[in-house]
Amino acid sequence: MSTPLNPVSIITRKRDGHAIDPDDIARLVAAYTREDVPDYQMSAFLMASFLQGLNDVEAAALTDAMLHSGTVLDLSDTPGVKVDKHSTGGVGDKVSLILAPIVASQGVPVPMVSGRGLGHTGGTLDKLESIPGFRTDLSMEAYKQQLEDIGIVLIGQTEEMAPADRKLYALRDVTGTVESIPLIAASIMSKKLAEGIDALVLDVKCGRGAFMKTEEDARTLAETLVAIGEDHDTPTVALLTDMNIPLGRAIGNWPEVAESIACLRGEHDETALMEVTYALAGEMLALGGVADTPKAGREQARNAVGSGEALDCLRTLVAAQDGDTGVIDDPSTRLGAAPVATVTAPDGMQGYVTEIDALALGHLAVDLGAGRRTKEDDVDPTAGLTLNKHVGDAVEPGDVLAHLHTAHTDQVEAFSASVRQAYTIGDTPPERRSAVWDRYTASGWEHA
Amino acid sequence: MSTPLNPVSIITRKRDGHAIDPDDIARLVAAYTREDVPDYQMSAFLMASFLQGLNDVEAAALTDAMLHSGTVLDLSDTPGVKVDKHSTGGVGDKVSLILAPIVASQGVPVPMVSGRGLGHTGGTLDKLESIPGFRTDLSMEAYKQQLEDIGIVLIGQTEEMAPADRKLYALRDVTGTVESIPLIAASIMSKKLAEGIDALVLDVKCGRGAFMKTEEDARTLAETLVAIGEDHDTPTVALLTDMNIPLGRAIGNWPEVAESIACLRGEHDETALMEVTYALAGEMLALGGVADTPKAGREQARNAVGSGEALDCLRTLVAAQDGDTGVIDDPSTRLGAAPVATVTAPDGMQGYVTEIDALALGHLAVDLGAGRRTKEDDVDPTAGLTLNKHVGDAVEPGDVLAHLHTAHTDQVEAFSASVRQAYTIGDTPPERRSAVWDRYTASGWEHA
Repeated sequence: MSTPLNPVSIITRKRDGHAIDPDDIARLVAAYTREDVPDYQMSAFLMASFLQGLNDVEAAALTDAMLHSGTVLDLSDTPGVKVDKHSTGGVGDKVSLILAPIVASQGVPVPMVSGRGLGHTGGTLDKLESIPGFRTDLSMEAYKQQLEDIGIVLIGQTEEMAPADRKLYALRDVTGTVESIPLIAASIMSKKLAEGIDALVLDVKCGRGAFMKTEEDARTLAETLVAIGEDHDTPTVALLTDMNIPLGRAIGNWPEVAESIACLRGEHDETALMEVTYALAGEMLALGGVADTPKAGREQARNAVGSGEALDCLRTLVAAQDGDTGVIDDPSTRLGAAPVATVTAPDGMQGYVTEIDALALGHLAVDLGAGRRTKEDDVDPTAGLTLNKHVGDAVEPGDVLAHLHTAHTDQVEAFSASVRQAYTIGDTPPERRSAVWDRYTASGWEHA
Repeated sequence: MSTPLNPVSIITRKRDGHAIDPDDIARLVAAYTREDVPDYQMSAFLMASFLQGLNDVEAAALTDAMLHSGTVLDLSDTPGVKVDKHSTGGVGDKVSLILAPIVASQGVPVPMVSGRGLGHTGGTLDKLESIPGFRTDLSMEAYKQQLEDIGIVLIGQTEEMAPADRKLYALRDVTGTVESIPLIAASIMSKKLAEGIDALVLDVKCGRGAFMKTEEDARTLAETLVAIGEDHDTPTVALLTDMNIPLGRAIGNWPEVAESIACLRGEHDETALMEVTYALAGEMLALGGVADTPKAGREQARNAVGSGEALDCLRTLVAAQDGDTGVIDDPSTRLGAAPVATVTAPDGMQGYVTEIDALALGHLAVDLGAGRRTKEDDVDPTAGLTLNKHVGDAVEPGDVLAHLHTAHTDQVEAFSASVRQAYTIGDTPPERRSAVWDRYTASGWEHA
């Protein structure tokens, strides 16, 4: 620290397209966190970074600075390779609820810190909290203890974890600097690395219902995330997966928990949802050292579902975090979960479902009460929709397309119209496509 | 105002390279001025504007918003076409001190609001204040009255004029967003248009000692400035002039006043300094309606110097603003003006001066005490240097290159070395070049 920090010089260098020294990034973020650098200088830096980009070294330095702005958990008391998964967010993405119990049931500890939904995508925390009684606000001590006791714990981000990321994210949100791949990557990785994990699997979603609409952006994000993970000596694998159509049939908090329970009972084993889940589980079990290869891990994951071990693990988790295990054993007992409306195929809708617009249904779920328009909104835990017809299914007029769950019963006509509009019908069944596209590691891209 | 102002949407649109509606710019700046939009959003908008640019319509809207954030003077009580000049700043640029009296002496009212020096360029206010007693802090009423009485007044920017520009400039200064052509142009024009002028001449300087280092940037700035003037129904002419070498022989506040007095006595009539001054005067007299063409105005300006009318006008101005007219009649009586050191040509410096580095001498003048490193610095009114050898002069070892005026007598050796280093010597005299390059109006570019 021989020279004093000069924020204007750092801003100007980035503005002019030059790379910033990692040490300068560290000092800038540290000074910003302790309020020695004002918001107006940081927002100018963020906009310059948005437009001029940050290289992998800069993104890693930014991650590191945000990571070390708060507590970095030490989970070394818990034996085993701690592995987590992060998804960049999608519509109907309940993968964590199925995946974490599968992996933990095989002896790989899963310490998972999740977020809430915002906009058209849901959040794992909201889904968990739709289980009556389920607590996500554990103390750091309780978090570590539970991981040691049962090998799985799911909580929300605490005040102590990466406070610089929260401060920067709030600033990005009001300065038009959210949608930058290196800034997104640094934000994700600073939170994940603060969990104290040993390895990480990333579900980088791509398509209409994802934040990354183009494959190019999704690939760049995957590469940036993996580079940051490697820079922090944390083996990281990214899978590129399809988010053009909703993942699974349920969209909304409790509806997605109910679907997850059905998945853990083996009822949806041949779906895109389980294809993605098993692929991620295979990676986690391989990274966790209990499977020799991701492929072997995938088979082990299938067996964990088939044997009921994974569902048992979910039940143990729910009990440990004060949730009502009765709704796990019989989801139909959850109050308010009954559909209030059934959407049917109108006259002329005849053929095969070729597309379902994930983005449109993500927005519809918010309108139904399942999501947030702003961070301050409350969610209705039981609101949402369940698709009866998915891509590939045959449709005739009068067939049930979907069930709606909402308190806004006066708007059911408009909601139904939105559902119908989200469907694209063709004369022939669409070609069956894989939901898991490609796999990226430090060694490069390969087919997943 | 049907929709509420959405700063994030405006920032995002500019970030993505779209044009902003003039009405949105007006509302954004108005909200920022009354502190309804915070600095951190405005700095993100400024950085996005810096990197994505603002078109002429946007720059004019920004100017207008800043102009109308404060008082716009009404000078309609004073008969005649009120004309002012603005220079983008250079080294040794004392043109205003010579030009304003020339033009006002011919019956064209000159209401001039000037700034202070910062960095390597000087400011007219500092120069005026080096005249003992001279006041630049007149009230708006006194300013109008003096213009009516004697047709010339030179003051500093008041709190009432373009407060949004001051607020935005202060923010740009600390967020790396100063050097943007449309932002510079809007800042200049908002201040000039607030003076209540009817027409404006711009001296857009280009070269090593100017803010615009390249001809391309200088031309773009000239075009942007003229477009804004025309948008505000204020006929505006820009001259593109050379700022690779210092303008005239003196650099520093009192030294420049002394040189200006000599110029008004006709002692430097064939210099680049007077070429620039007469060219600007010709434009102002033509715009002011007392000369048929800029060329005729140039001749009239020469006559105003030859007849002594212009010097009389300066004396009247100094008296009106409480300055000591004794130093106008005999500049040598000004205390502290004696040179403290003489810089001579070293062994081997033989030939003709082909270049003098204006930027290096501008920085040297700051070191001598004539300028400011930060806005809070005081200036030494008599500090500076006077060149004895200018471009084209023959030089032999031992010849006097320059005289230094400084209180920092302990650093004279280093100062002298800087002067010598600023000179480039060739074997043959350089080709004589014009200091006035080109002329831009709403009709386009032409040779000046």
